[in-house]
Amino acid sequence: MEENIKEYLEERKNIVNNYLNVALEKIREDSPLYAAINYSLMAGGKRLRPIMLIATYESNVDNYKTILPFASAIEMIHTYSLIHDDLPIMDNSDYRRGKPTCHKIYGSDMALLAGDALISLAFEIISSKKLLEDFDAKSVLRIVYDFAELSGAKGLVGGQVMDMVSMDMNEVDENLILYIEKRKTASLFMLAVRVGGILANVSEDELINLTQFAENFGISYQIQDDILDEISTTEELGKDTHQDRKNKKATFVSLYGVDRSKEIARDYIEKAANYLSLYNDKYKLLIDIAYNTLERIK
Amino acid sequence: MEENIKEYLEERKNIVNNYLNVALEKIREDSPLYAAINYSLMAGGKRLRPIMLIATYESNVDNYKTILPFASAIEMIHTYSLIHDDLPIMDNSDYRRGKPTCHKIYGSDMALLAGDALISLAFEIISSKKLLEDFDAKSVLRIVYDFAELSGAKGLVGGQVMDMVSMDMNEVDENLILYIEKRKTASLFMLAVRVGGILANVSEDELINLTQFAENFGISYQIQDDILDEISTTEELGKDTHQDRKNKKATFVSLYGVDRSKEIARDYIEKAANYLSLYNDKYKLLIDIAYNTLERIK
Repeated sequence: MEENIKEYLEERKNIVNNYLNVALEKIREDSPLYAAINYSLMAGGKRLRPIMLIATYESNVDNYKTILPFASAIEMIHTYSLIHDDLPIMDNSDYRRGKPTCHKIYGSDMALLAGDALISLAFEIISSKKLLEDFDAKSVLRIVYDFAELSGAKGLVGGQVMDMVSMDMNEVDENLILYIEKRKTASLFMLAVRVGGILANVSEDELINLTQFAENFGISYQIQDDILDEISTTEELGKDTHQDRKNKKATFVSLYGVDRSKEIARDYIEKAANYLSLYNDKYKLLIDIAYNTLERIK
Repeated sequence: MEENIKEYLEERKNIVNNYLNVALEKIREDSPLYAAINYSLMAGGKRLRPIMLIATYESNVDNYKTILPFASAIEMIHTYSLIHDDLPIMDNSDYRRGKPTCHKIYGSDMALLAGDALISLAFEIISSKKLLEDFDAKSVLRIVYDFAELSGAKGLVGGQVMDMVSMDMNEVDENLILYIEKRKTASLFMLAVRVGGILANVSEDELINLTQFAENFGISYQIQDDILDEISTTEELGKDTHQDRKNKKATFVSLYGVDRSKEIARDYIEKAANYLSLYNDKYKLLIDIAYNTLERIK
């Protein structure tokens, strides 16, 4: 079982990586922009968001190949946010995915533009005419809307903003941290399962439950990341650690310490899984993926 | 006649401004992000890109009200590119639209995020379900694709990249400058007339001619801007001037001087207008708008 889920994650990761290479062909040229985008997008990473999208779809429909454009687009949005977040004018991080950050290699100007171009590329890939061979235009348009909403001011970017703002606050409470984690991290997981669900034509009720699953999973995942930031080394994690402490970030770890945060991370996974218990074993794959992330903080 | 076009531009500008205020309601909240977006988006500006979109549509169809979401989205993309372009890690400009640049007021981190959020907001507004009351989903999806393609690596962002790269070059030629101006500036004008044309259901041939018109107009418009950068003061222009000279940018002005550049700017407007001569007086409005921009460098 546990072996199975690790195998699944590895297989789907390779499929996503292959498709990302195909998708990058759209903008390939001999330019520092392409080099910077390729560097950051193909630098590794678990591809957890696209895998969650695929897993949601696969729990309903047998053939996942047609949905790879959407899966790769979500990884592009994720990668853009990492590139911008790592910039010296933001978190000022030197390492990411085991390598120097984009701006360390290509400069801040090119890293900024690489992030910008990745947003456009993501929307280009999910609005291609070719998708209409497999999906109806209204569903695709709804997905475009979800991408836009959950990546924007009320989603991912909104979370980054409060993440920056909270650094200057003297007191932070659990509600603020949850607000940040929901927007900053849960947004793209919510997007992943929603897109998988919309493409598979699940009911609106089921879409809501999937979204709730992803929101709670996303909160847990960010708490896990904050724990790892505190207890790991750069070598282990492939990115700068002790960043939250350095930047005085508001996290569950800063509020409750590592041990209590581990319990909270597990609680949120359980809460997440509960939203899918209605559907018997249908979403076992998603639930297994969620529990599997807890291995990171064992 | 000339009075007429000035009145038209003023009226449509006010309509665009009113709609931008409506559109911003989607993300209004008490946050520095909203404040920064509102500041830059509502700081003034001629709204030439949305007006060109409206003018293209109005040349075909009587009622422009339904297309205002698309018109406002194009101004959001334009504003995001100005905010990012003005950052200290890019052109490092202090003034824009007669006011301090976004990062001067809100900091580089918030300006970065405001730009990011504007991209998402633009795509959110052009993929709203409500648009399907007036337009078919396939057309809207095609427009999303055009927005993505022309704002991305092969459009706007690609132009910014070469604009930065050209600063370090010892020799630049006309072809490189044209490449930069097409991508950096013409892209959004091409987007504007294409979206207006697609919404008005013009033929594919007509769409190609509209696109050619906008490409040549956009090149002229950028040459005009480069001339103004060289001959104007910050007070007159509302933004930093002599930036190209300072940043050693490759422009027609640096290559041929101001007088010859004025002739070239006029030539490109004439070339642009020629693409629409097939349609008799149908696109007189667009042509008048194009010629009117030459007033700036008289």
